[in-house]
Amino acid sequence: MPFGILKQHADRLDKLEVALATMGGMVEQQLTDALTAFEQRDAGLAKTVGARDAETDRQERQIEELVAELFHERRRNPGEIRRMMAAVRIASEMERIGDLSKNIARRSIIIADSDLQGEHSKHAGVVRMGRIALRQFSEALDALFRRNADAARAVRNADDQVDDIYNSVFRELLTLMNRMPGTASTGTHLIFVAKNFERIGDHATNIAERVHYALTGEQLPAERVKTDVTSTLIAAE
Amino acid sequence: MPFGILKQHADRLDKLEVALATMGGMVEQQLTDALTAFEQRDAGLAKTVGARDAETDRQERQIEELVAELFHERRRNPGEIRRMMAAVRIASEMERIGDLSKNIARRSIIIADSDLQGEHSKHAGVVRMGRIALRQFSEALDALFRRNADAARAVRNADDQVDDIYNSVFRELLTLMNRMPGTASTGTHLIFVAKNFERIGDHATNIAERVHYALTGEQLPAERVKTDVTSTLIAAE
Repeated sequence: MPFGILKQHADRLDKLEVALATMGGMVEQQLTDALTAFEQRDAGLAKTVGARDAETDRQERQIEELVAELFHERRRNPGEIRRMMAAVRIASEMERIGDLSKNIARRSIIIADSDLQGEHSKHAGVVRMGRIALRQFSEALDALFRRNADAARAVRNADDQVDDIYNSVFRELLTLMNRMPGTASTGTHLIFVAKNFERIGDHATNIAERVHYALTGEQLPAERVKTDVTSTLIAAE
Repeated sequence: MPFGILKQHADRLDKLEVALATMGGMVEQQLTDALTAFEQRDAGLAKTVGARDAETDRQERQIEELVAELFHERRRNPGEIRRMMAAVRIASEMERIGDLSKNIARRSIIIADSDLQGEHSKHAGVVRMGRIALRQFSEALDALFRRNADAARAVRNADDQVDDIYNSVFRELLTLMNRMPGTASTGTHLIFVAKNFERIGDHATNIAERVHYALTGEQLPAERVKTDVTSTLIAAE
């Protein structure tokens, strides 16, 4: 095969990485803005997050179409197939992170002028979760673009931290809601924001696992033990 | 190309549909059991749902591996590429439905012996959501296996119903939690169960959209207007 053709194919697969980088950068900004809007009770910023969601959907679709074109172009070798399938799945995980960011931003608007303004400890816990989830996502993107399997493997270690904070925030908020009538609305929205950050951490972990597999052809050990135990928790009353 | 080879390839792609059917049937059972466990407060049944989750994960992985093999086998035409990429995405949506069913089953165990036993109206609303979500999923599977694009298109119409019930259940539960101290835990778990059924409806809709695209090559009109407005709701207090 003449070198030119090989080169041309390489460039085509590189387009996929460029498209992922573009989408990744945009979703990272969505998540950063959602976190800032939540932390600083900035309703204006929260609104801009929602407005950008359609663009993320469009980017996901473009990545799928590009992958379909690349598959049609010629028969692919196993390494290429792994990269291309990983791209589709990573785009889908990023779309979900964008969607969850939009949801966090929306809920921030209600929480911003709520009856729990004084309850800084709960709020701070959720912000802490958000920061870890954002860092996980940034590190997963970084592992993807530096093609670093070790870095990818490291991302999911942070997931336990997010889960621990989530469990304690959940417990505290239930207790508060039971003790202070009138706090159910804000308390529930705060729990949902916390849950959304926890899910973003999961999606970042999924991205890292996909990156690891695409680079090495090896799945990371299957079941990380999940420590979100809130589905079996009852509040102190 | 001799007929035998064409036939052999057709059989290989059929294996993909068999794998999807197997996984679909299993996830449908998971969802059915989770709904029954919730409705009949059957903790024993709830536990069996969680135990089957690892099998669903394994099936998803197998489908991805089969698709990778099929891509490697030879260069594919656009129709085949659509079917193969749809299979990967549908398996992923089904895995999420299995996961959400597990979560519903877990929460059912807590709700089963709770302080809100008497609150049948809220409970009934959530069961109604669950039934619609299950029907959506069954219809999406049916559209997939009968290769019926019209049936696929019809699935997402039910989504508005699920969203409407969710919004009213959410509102009622917040009001209840504000009025009756001590109900925060069960109320929150019920909201999560309702939210999970709502998300299952979304995943069923996504499957239907993928089926439609795989069959016709045409995307359904992009933005169905979402009517989950709970992220902007404040309870009557």
